[in-house]
Amino acid sequence: MSAVPGTFSRRTYYMRASEIRELLKLTEGRDIISFAGGLPDPRTFPKEDLAKIAKEVIEKYGDNALQYSPTPGVTPFRETLAEFLNSHGVSVTKDDQIIVTTGSQEALYLVSLTLIDDGDVVFVEAPTYLAAINAFRVYRPRLVSIPIDEEGMRTDILEEKAKKLAADGFKLKMIYTVPTCQNPSGVTMSRDRRKHLLEIAEKYNMIVIEDDPYSFFSFEPLNVEHLKTMDKNSRVVYLGTLSKILSPGLRIGYAAGPKWIVSYFELAKQMVDLHSSTLTQYIAMEAIKRGLVDSTVEKAKKIYKEKRDAMLDAMEKYFPEGSHWTRPAGGLFVFAYAPPGIDTKSLLPEALLRGVAYVPGASFFVEGGGENTMRLNFSYPTIEQIYEGIKRLGSLIAEKAGKR
Amino acid sequence: MSAVPGTFSRRTYYMRASEIRELLKLTEGRDIISFAGGLPDPRTFPKEDLAKIAKEVIEKYGDNALQYSPTPGVTPFRETLAEFLNSHGVSVTKDDQIIVTTGSQEALYLVSLTLIDDGDVVFVEAPTYLAAINAFRVYRPRLVSIPIDEEGMRTDILEEKAKKLAADGFKLKMIYTVPTCQNPSGVTMSRDRRKHLLEIAEKYNMIVIEDDPYSFFSFEPLNVEHLKTMDKNSRVVYLGTLSKILSPGLRIGYAAGPKWIVSYFELAKQMVDLHSSTLTQYIAMEAIKRGLVDSTVEKAKKIYKEKRDAMLDAMEKYFPEGSHWTRPAGGLFVFAYAPPGIDTKSLLPEALLRGVAYVPGASFFVEGGGENTMRLNFSYPTIEQIYEGIKRLGSLIAEKAGKR
Repeated sequence: MSAVPGTFSRRTYYMRASEIRELLKLTEGRDIISFAGGLPDPRTFPKEDLAKIAKEVIEKYGDNALQYSPTPGVTPFRETLAEFLNSHGVSVTKDDQIIVTTGSQEALYLVSLTLIDDGDVVFVEAPTYLAAINAFRVYRPRLVSIPIDEEGMRTDILEEKAKKLAADGFKLKMIYTVPTCQNPSGVTMSRDRRKHLLEIAEKYNMIVIEDDPYSFFSFEPLNVEHLKTMDKNSRVVYLGTLSKILSPGLRIGYAAGPKWIVSYFELAKQMVDLHSSTLTQYIAMEAIKRGLVDSTVEKAKKIYKEKRDAMLDAMEKYFPEGSHWTRPAGGLFVFAYAPPGIDTKSLLPEALLRGVAYVPGASFFVEGGGENTMRLNFSYPTIEQIYEGIKRLGSLIAEKAGKR
Repeated sequence: MSAVPGTFSRRTYYMRASEIRELLKLTEGRDIISFAGGLPDPRTFPKEDLAKIAKEVIEKYGDNALQYSPTPGVTPFRETLAEFLNSHGVSVTKDDQIIVTTGSQEALYLVSLTLIDDGDVVFVEAPTYLAAINAFRVYRPRLVSIPIDEEGMRTDILEEKAKKLAADGFKLKMIYTVPTCQNPSGVTMSRDRRKHLLEIAEKYNMIVIEDDPYSFFSFEPLNVEHLKTMDKNSRVVYLGTLSKILSPGLRIGYAAGPKWIVSYFELAKQMVDLHSSTLTQYIAMEAIKRGLVDSTVEKAKKIYKEKRDAMLDAMEKYFPEGSHWTRPAGGLFVFAYAPPGIDTKSLLPEALLRGVAYVPGASFFVEGGGENTMRLNFSYPTIEQIYEGIKRLGSLIAEKAGKR
């Protein structure tokens, strides 16, 4: 038997394998300097402490930590998370609800599953986070992209587009944003833009998804408030994760937002995976309580700042005139613009042959454009690899730019 | 702001909170003997060994065990699982693919997401597993239920209904079955019925989902083969879980089936949660390798057989004439039929007042019926609680039956 028409659901037409994951498969086990991933540096993992915590948690709380647990998460862990968020400037009140998810990817998927109908308008940044787009696309929204500059999303353009689309009768459903140390650009949205974004959301009755994997370890003071904290109208849902600030292998993400929204995520999660790992929730709870997340963040900040500085320095040295790039205050990525006319997607095979990988940027732009862009990860490679890889990439781009 | 029409997706209309989970919330923290859950007895958890393994795994393999991992699962763990399944009579060949899921609930959801379109016919047993139905319903199949008897699904009725529905132009998509120690009934499908079921699937080009959480710890020799093993036409997907045979808190399920089907689950999972916990996959891998699953199964079998025997004995003693029940060879449940006319759903509040809980059976029947049935879990309560709870329940039913 082989696949016959009609075997798989129509939904599968709108699922696509992530280009990044497919690309990573190609480089696996080869001697390639990869700027393509988004992996934390394993040196940041507090292995000894987590080993100790895991053992103690099973010994002490095994009857519960090894058992089934409630769909929204282990209750004391959710309380710990709420305290943790409040102490880090993310306001979580009694009108909010926290749901623990299997990585923040599941939170993105629950957003998509419970909110998006065919044709609903979802505003995203250009460029934006690819895995979010992939989770949204399956339920066929009208993805509308808003350009960013050094102050983040251009809310003036958001306002214009919202006005026009509303007038044309479209249902404006939500704004998805990574406002702080954005993926892929590294840019942070300014205070005024945040305020403006919330006003627009209120005017057009949209839900705001604030995806925030990176703000905990910015290398420089950001001087902004979280959208969740600024929200006075119960329309912002905050998504977070322990992947970058403790360990991705625990697979713990979370959504914190108004009960009237998050209760729907819970309903959906019951059906999707019933609950996330009880054991890793207990481990994460103890890690937060013992200050292990805060100390991991401090360690990671130091390592990543050095790596970011190395990458910016290497780019300054090796990238040809006509290219430019972001100077991220946090996060794991630099977003680079090769000289106009260079197509980073068709350049990739040659880059791989020279032993360096990156993610072509075009797929981060949902309405086209960005053909000359690329996302460069600096958290995983070593400093030596960063210099060597950027050197190789820089000369390749210089050659191509010269040839045109 | 509060929910306005059109805020949530149309899909949310077809999501429903599990009655069982809502019910369990009611009984939480109260002095009630609960036969309503489906929790393993925590005495079966190999706490000391798992504590040791968790510590060692993080110390030794932390760079990988705490990191992101591939969507279908940690590669050596999938190899370990394939060996484990083959050595326990579940044939997994080179044409098959295994995907690790966040509990087997996620596998059920991936089945639903990738296979079911509006109106597709999905055959299920009557009664069947509620959480599977809930995962299927969101994509609006035509659920068609096939009665069971002591030999499992009545495949003669399946054949009749398939013939009629195919003639009427319906798309016959799949058969969902828990063939071994079924939930909720405890019944095991006979060898002949299994063969017949596969013939019908072949004739009407249907996919078969063999959901098997319980066969590893049957209390009596079952003398049947797995549908996956009998399948010669690459159409059976086998779903398993470590929840019942090691620990639910690790949240590790898996699907093993033909690549042409399981590759779609992988595509969908990338979007749903990217991957399941890396750490708990490493822990599970070591547990299987060190024989901890096999020893847990042996321990659990002994404990659950005693409890099953206690429940059957108590029912014999305390349940009134006119009631009958299954005698499960494995699993966690007895399925009971109160005398006709007794409505177990409306009886429940009074049962709770007398300090005993169960799940009314009607919701396990997707096309109605079963109003006088109930599912009784014996794995979690103690033997003393089983006798006391069944006594209370028996007298309540007897009173009601007498009054009519």
